[in-house]
Amino acid sequence: MSRRPVAVFAIAPWAFDGVFPADLLTRLRQLVDIDPAARFTSLAGPAAAAALEKADLLITGWGCPRIDADVLAAAPRLRALVHAAGTVKARVDPVVFEHGVVVSSAAEANAVPVADYTIAMLVLGAKQAFSRARRYAAAGEDSPRDWLSGEGTGLHGCTVGVIGASRIGRHVLHRLRQFDVEVLLHDPYVSRAEAARLGAELVGMDDLCRRSDLVTVHAPALPETRHMLDGRRLDLLPDGAMVINTARGSLIDTEALTRACADGRVSAILDVTEPEPLPPGHPLLGMSNVLVTPHLAGAQGRELRRLGEFAVAEVSRFVNGAPLLGRVEPEQLPYIA
Amino acid sequence: MSRRPVAVFAIAPWAFDGVFPADLLTRLRQLVDIDPAARFTSLAGPAAAAALEKADLLITGWGCPRIDADVLAAAPRLRALVHAAGTVKARVDPVVFEHGVVVSSAAEANAVPVADYTIAMLVLGAKQAFSRARRYAAAGEDSPRDWLSGEGTGLHGCTVGVIGASRIGRHVLHRLRQFDVEVLLHDPYVSRAEAARLGAELVGMDDLCRRSDLVTVHAPALPETRHMLDGRRLDLLPDGAMVINTARGSLIDTEALTRACADGRVSAILDVTEPEPLPPGHPLLGMSNVLVTPHLAGAQGRELRRLGEFAVAEVSRFVNGAPLLGRVEPEQLPYIA
Repeated sequence: MSRRPVAVFAIAPWAFDGVFPADLLTRLRQLVDIDPAARFTSLAGPAAAAALEKADLLITGWGCPRIDADVLAAAPRLRALVHAAGTVKARVDPVVFEHGVVVSSAAEANAVPVADYTIAMLVLGAKQAFSRARRYAAAGEDSPRDWLSGEGTGLHGCTVGVIGASRIGRHVLHRLRQFDVEVLLHDPYVSRAEAARLGAELVGMDDLCRRSDLVTVHAPALPETRHMLDGRRLDLLPDGAMVINTARGSLIDTEALTRACADGRVSAILDVTEPEPLPPGHPLLGMSNVLVTPHLAGAQGRELRRLGEFAVAEVSRFVNGAPLLGRVEPEQLPYIA
Repeated sequence: MSRRPVAVFAIAPWAFDGVFPADLLTRLRQLVDIDPAARFTSLAGPAAAAALEKADLLITGWGCPRIDADVLAAAPRLRALVHAAGTVKARVDPVVFEHGVVVSSAAEANAVPVADYTIAMLVLGAKQAFSRARRYAAAGEDSPRDWLSGEGTGLHGCTVGVIGASRIGRHVLHRLRQFDVEVLLHDPYVSRAEAARLGAELVGMDDLCRRSDLVTVHAPALPETRHMLDGRRLDLLPDGAMVINTARGSLIDTEALTRACADGRVSAILDVTEPEPLPPGHPLLGMSNVLVTPHLAGAQGRELRRLGEFAVAEVSRFVNGAPLLGRVEPEQLPYIA
């Protein structure tokens, strides 16, 4: 291209420094003309309009506005939208694709810490590490201590049910190959042969629930996946089973899960819930067989720069005419997280 | 060999079924003559004497007595001691080696779940998942919720200090290669070049403490390693550092660690403590920045059969004249766990 491409940031101030630390900004400015001080959370004002008029690329992130026909009208040169976070669905109006703008998401970079969290929770959940730690802390002089209890059974020989061979689901499946576990997969868009290549046996949802010691959810939040783990399916789980949710709260019927965990029949590790956050004093927050973490499985803190690294690499690929690794196609929008 | 070798079990009843489930016993009985009903926790009585008289192999495990000169005198044919657990040091008198008896330990099989636990805790500890889960559960209607807090920084870009390139330490070092972390190693028996091959920079203990965001302990319990993490060294840790101990409680000065954690300056994940168990109400059991699990990192429950699998494979190697993978040499005894 004859002139240096111009890029504009649309990202919340609270996310910016973590995602784009100084060294990444330096790399970015070697690729494009960009003013790191001119960052927008609304693209409606006159300052944004002036910036958009020249913009070839939009670099978006957490807190950016929805990119729609109004933004496109203000940005006649726009050719690429590079999103430095995981979820583009709510951010990108389909009209963006119709205008020939290439869309990229950093979901791949965000998948790594979520998969790491999931595997860590599978390892520790299979040992019932958290409920046993709580009983240890709470036990008095005369209470039984569960030293060398056979209860924490460990991951070895378990059956793990993976719901959804999404990007994160595939990372989890790949990591599970390191363990001596049987892996079941439910995903309506995956063939039996592809599941086998992923190291898993393709099964229906009910079958997955009946056979899994540990169930981990990696499906997108869609109308047809809402409450896919409902009371009936939770009842199919074997006694002592554990459910891990790092995807979206709506995939599980919270009331039904609360009942199953209150029984002590099922335990759960939840990084996402419905509603989110859970109201103070919600029963799930007080159960010894339930651990609720505040939506921290994805990139946070030091990990945020992974998103920026991915976005800067995408900008570099775009500027150099290479295919984008995180490219999102319009027909994927209904199915991705 | 002309006749089928004879083996004798010395293992506690509570450990036996988990370590040697029926299918492993079947495999074992294809290799040696053994009476699974004749298991000894003392080798002093007449029944034990009758069994030992014919024994070519002793298969030991948790709860077995110390194998010393008296046992050897009663077992004139003994040529191998296969220990289906991790720690042989306290079980095997040096006289066993002097009699030419080959000693094998299943420490390798026990190292896998300990390394898995360690990596899981590094991943979650770096996110401060447990302290944030506790604050989430405890927060009331008007309390701040730490949603999207920058505090949980994640493992990406951290410096991890590994104390001890023991068997478990090496498993941990190997797994750390999957993460974008800087790895420091302290081990007085490892060269700079070997450390580099293990993916780590060899450093002194003080340097390791000064530079590590997360410290994980995998050294053996020896007089010279007692309290190797003492108050002075804990003071060297950067603010916000985390200490993980899955090795032995004596490696850390519990009082000094309690002070450092009470300050909030350091956090800790402890699967072993000194004393162990901690007395009810010990301050470490009540701190939001400390998680104490009841010595569950090693093989437990379903994982126990890993120890039996390893032992049966060792018996097979011995019977077939192959070198033992878990062979312990007498000169190692002072340095191993």
